[in-house]
Amino acid sequence: TPHVYEYERDPAAIYRQSFATIEAEADLSALSEAARPLAIRLIHACGMVDVAADIRLSSGAVEAGRAAVGRVAGTASDQTLPIFCDSEMVARGIIARALPAGVSPVVTLNDPSVPDLAKRLGTTRSAAATELWRARLEGSIVAIGNAPTALFHLLEGIERGWPRPALILGFPVGFVGAAESKQALAERPHGVPFVTLLGRRGGSAMAAAAVNALTLGLGGDGT
Amino acid sequence: TPHVYEYERDPAAIYRQSFATIEAEADLSALSEAARPLAIRLIHACGMVDVAADIRLSSGAVEAGRAAVGRVAGTASDQTLPIFCDSEMVARGIIARALPAGVSPVVTLNDPSVPDLAKRLGTTRSAAATELWRARLEGSIVAIGNAPTALFHLLEGIERGWPRPALILGFPVGFVGAAESKQALAERPHGVPFVTLLGRRGGSAMAAAAVNALTLGLGGDGT
Repeated sequence: TPHVYEYERDPAAIYRQSFATIEAEADLSALSEAARPLAIRLIHACGMVDVAADIRLSSGAVEAGRAAVGRVAGTASDQTLPIFCDSEMVARGIIARALPAGVSPVVTLNDPSVPDLAKRLGTTRSAAATELWRARLEGSIVAIGNAPTALFHLLEGIERGWPRPALILGFPVGFVGAAESKQALAERPHGVPFVTLLGRRGGSAMAAAAVNALTLGLGGDGT
Repeated sequence: TPHVYEYERDPAAIYRQSFATIEAEADLSALSEAARPLAIRLIHACGMVDVAADIRLSSGAVEAGRAAVGRVAGTASDQTLPIFCDSEMVARGIIARALPAGVSPVVTLNDPSVPDLAKRLGTTRSAAATELWRARLEGSIVAIGNAPTALFHLLEGIERGWPRPALILGFPVGFVGAAESKQALAERPHGVPFVTLLGRRGGSAMAAAAVNALTLGLGGDGT
């Protein structure tokens, strides 16, 4: 007789049980009411409740991100809001159905100008790609889930007078520069609202989850 | 005077330092020589050296994956090798430049037939999407980085006689079914070579990293 696999198949039940498990296990007491759905989505994306302790955000950061989305959603004009992502993976993790018209992920990493720009600037392609955000950076949302150099380069730009995004979601991951870039964001955000995760952990799924928290809260996506 | 950010900007140096840190910190002693580059890439993708202890793979799994890629790379014919991914994020994390001609990621999640199929089968879209892999599953590579239901549904299919992939890379993440689906893969792989990570951790970046290890080893991708 064939082996029978017992598992939950209902998407809504999977979401509900996931969030319930997270709420039961994670210590979210240091976070504001507005920040908790975002924290829950970050935990949901990585499967680790203990990341809650490493989340850092500026006061009102979630509200600032929601307001940026809301400004576009509420207008009849052709106003747009770019969500600048440092990788295609981040962009693909953003739940498109939840984005109001005019709000869309933008990835400049594969722009044909980027390899030469990176050489000229003596940096990575990921960092050079943030130069192409500059003209539309004012009031935008930035979601970095891969490259520490992208976050560092953005902070350097803002330090030198680049326009200010409405919110930086800083989740680079890894062993070289990730912890340092996020520490730099948390310590010296130049007045820009931010959400980040201290340490080596992070990644594109968490960066995308942070965006999804702004548009969906804890609502499901129907998958 | 403006704040000066000190960080590594050279892509090759970043890769080199990352892998050196991982080799210094991670305990890879339980893994075969062939499995170590894959383990290092998994760790690199998530920023956590302790995942090494949760990696499980069948004997010869990495070699089986490399052979599947090599069979296509070595032919002058139009033979192809699909890498079936359960999400666009996994597909986007696969380094396209490293794929030989004929080897390409395939994502069926957004096929127009999937929502109705999911309803009919009483399961998630992710699980239903694996039904569309069936015709080309024989000898393929499967990379699951998101949905436990996709891995469970694939295992059920193989149990009932679906064609066998050359390799299953099983990295669903989260709180409902992720640990259970990977445990099921490790305990009852039906003779299919596999690599997985026990527990709740996983994700699309790790699934993609496992694919990249097959094609690149520890080589850099130039970003």
